[in-house]
Amino acid sequence: MSVIDIHNHVVPEGFPAASSSCCDKWPSMKLRPDGKSVAMFGTKEFRVLDDRCWDVGRRTADMDKEHVDVQALSPMPELLSYWMDVEDALSVGRHVNGLISDMIAKAPKRFVGLGMVPLQDPERAAKELSVLHSSGLSGVEIGSNINGKPPGDPFFDPFYAEVERLGMAVFVHALHPVGVDRVVGPARLVTYLNFPVDTGFAAASMITGRTLEKFPKLRVAFSHGGGTLATILPRLAMGWNGSAELQKTFAEPTGIARRFYYDNLVYDIELMRHLLKVFGRSQIFVGTDYPFDARQAFPVEFIDRLSLEKADADRILGGNAAAFLNLPAAG
Amino acid sequence: MSVIDIHNHVVPEGFPAASSSCCDKWPSMKLRPDGKSVAMFGTKEFRVLDDRCWDVGRRTADMDKEHVDVQALSPMPELLSYWMDVEDALSVGRHVNGLISDMIAKAPKRFVGLGMVPLQDPERAAKELSVLHSSGLSGVEIGSNINGKPPGDPFFDPFYAEVERLGMAVFVHALHPVGVDRVVGPARLVTYLNFPVDTGFAAASMITGRTLEKFPKLRVAFSHGGGTLATILPRLAMGWNGSAELQKTFAEPTGIARRFYYDNLVYDIELMRHLLKVFGRSQIFVGTDYPFDARQAFPVEFIDRLSLEKADADRILGGNAAAFLNLPAAG
Repeated sequence: MSVIDIHNHVVPEGFPAASSSCCDKWPSMKLRPDGKSVAMFGTKEFRVLDDRCWDVGRRTADMDKEHVDVQALSPMPELLSYWMDVEDALSVGRHVNGLISDMIAKAPKRFVGLGMVPLQDPERAAKELSVLHSSGLSGVEIGSNINGKPPGDPFFDPFYAEVERLGMAVFVHALHPVGVDRVVGPARLVTYLNFPVDTGFAAASMITGRTLEKFPKLRVAFSHGGGTLATILPRLAMGWNGSAELQKTFAEPTGIARRFYYDNLVYDIELMRHLLKVFGRSQIFVGTDYPFDARQAFPVEFIDRLSLEKADADRILGGNAAAFLNLPAAG
Repeated sequence: MSVIDIHNHVVPEGFPAASSSCCDKWPSMKLRPDGKSVAMFGTKEFRVLDDRCWDVGRRTADMDKEHVDVQALSPMPELLSYWMDVEDALSVGRHVNGLISDMIAKAPKRFVGLGMVPLQDPERAAKELSVLHSSGLSGVEIGSNINGKPPGDPFFDPFYAEVERLGMAVFVHALHPVGVDRVVGPARLVTYLNFPVDTGFAAASMITGRTLEKFPKLRVAFSHGGGTLATILPRLAMGWNGSAELQKTFAEPTGIARRFYYDNLVYDIELMRHLLKVFGRSQIFVGTDYPFDARQAFPVEFIDRLSLEKADADRILGGNAAAFLNLPAAG
């Protein structure tokens, strides 16, 4: 069984010049005097990066070291550009999707792709999906919110309809999270405290918003083990069980949650065990966050610690991801 | 061993007239034509209630039926009045604390009290604590945020200093939660989806804000099993382990989390099992939400389902709550 990592990111080594219409958020790459590359948005330094973000040789060498056979490449989420004019976001997206396609072309047995679309305009995003599909990408990464709107909002239905029609996959990743004013301490805490919350709200919105009821063949996955969803779900189920209004509005939430996929990027073996109980052994797969700081490397060793039967371990390491991506059964 | 329920609420049967200075949020009780009592805030109907909220005989009869020996009475959280002028909030608080004292006086073996203070003014709240303490209340209920400010903000330090000095307990309850714009569906979903999130942020803020480091004898409990904290904590711990900046700012988060208390109001036996692993068997106690809709009645039967050793079950049913409230060991 191949080991498939669904949660890892790419950044192009460079970007086209900003369009004349754009905006103080256009991405670029700056080479600092200390020799480090820095991803910039407008004039703001966002993150120090290195060639692991774009270099196929460097990346596959690390994959070999860490026993990962296949990565599903997705954009660094800050590139998703929902806050730009649609045409500008399309330009950024095509550049990033192009990098993903190039990397796949260089190592087609090691990479598959989750691209990006300008979801601030769901109709335009739906149209762009055909471009991604015909260039061989398996799906799209989307934000846990789109300019504050949760992905379960019916506003996005035209996009999901087309995703379902094309048989593509949707990977929901934490982005610009809610509740920053609830954090006491250094700014970096937002990454640790608020990302899981926004992902949990995103998943809940796709339950209460009936996304899988409307698009039953859709395959949707959530980053970071679904974030806070596992602690919210029992209370939502309790509320649903006691409310005719909620029962009329959406289907039983626990059952829907067990149709979503989740990565295992939770940094804790007890939480991983709990998620397997809550969501099921067919719904969780590997995510490493390669090559960023909040990594969980060596997925085989992590899953070994669960002492599962081999068939279950194989599903978590690769089989579930293959089902999510609709790949031929990995051998 | 007595069974002690830490999470349940009271509402007075009536309220004094609004002060001339107040405001469209003053509480009152309306008797509707259909014979039901409705708690009003200003002209807005908030919740249909009945005499279980204030009647000692009715309440103790239900406790007998549900095998609860002692309730720690706390205000319905909407009464906390942080959004009022301090003097108005003090008036409401004294009226509500008076009900709690009266109920304790009528059945001193069945009730203890968690009162309320105007925490929008921490110095004034600290001063008011002496009144609660001398009237025999064991602690205070506070909101998971105070007008948007998380309880771990150093703004509240004068209050915690006095709580610690008096040896009182702090019960943090979800209130006016963050992320309402992330919800798709009926308004009542906010109670199910956002309450746990706000409680999780509150607990995290008291870790990153060093509340227990500054006030080491403070005893703090969180409603709803700490809400989303259990799914956030491993990621926070991962971030802390990798960051010298965070290590300089606050102590190792998992260790601090295991010094807080949590109720067991999570509606799911697997989540309860997980919380016992995360927080420890000495830190979780019974909460029922009596007499409101989101109830978890029959605590003994719920804990029985865990098949714990008797000593552990007894701690969860009463011993841990006695430690939190600083009661003489219940017999």
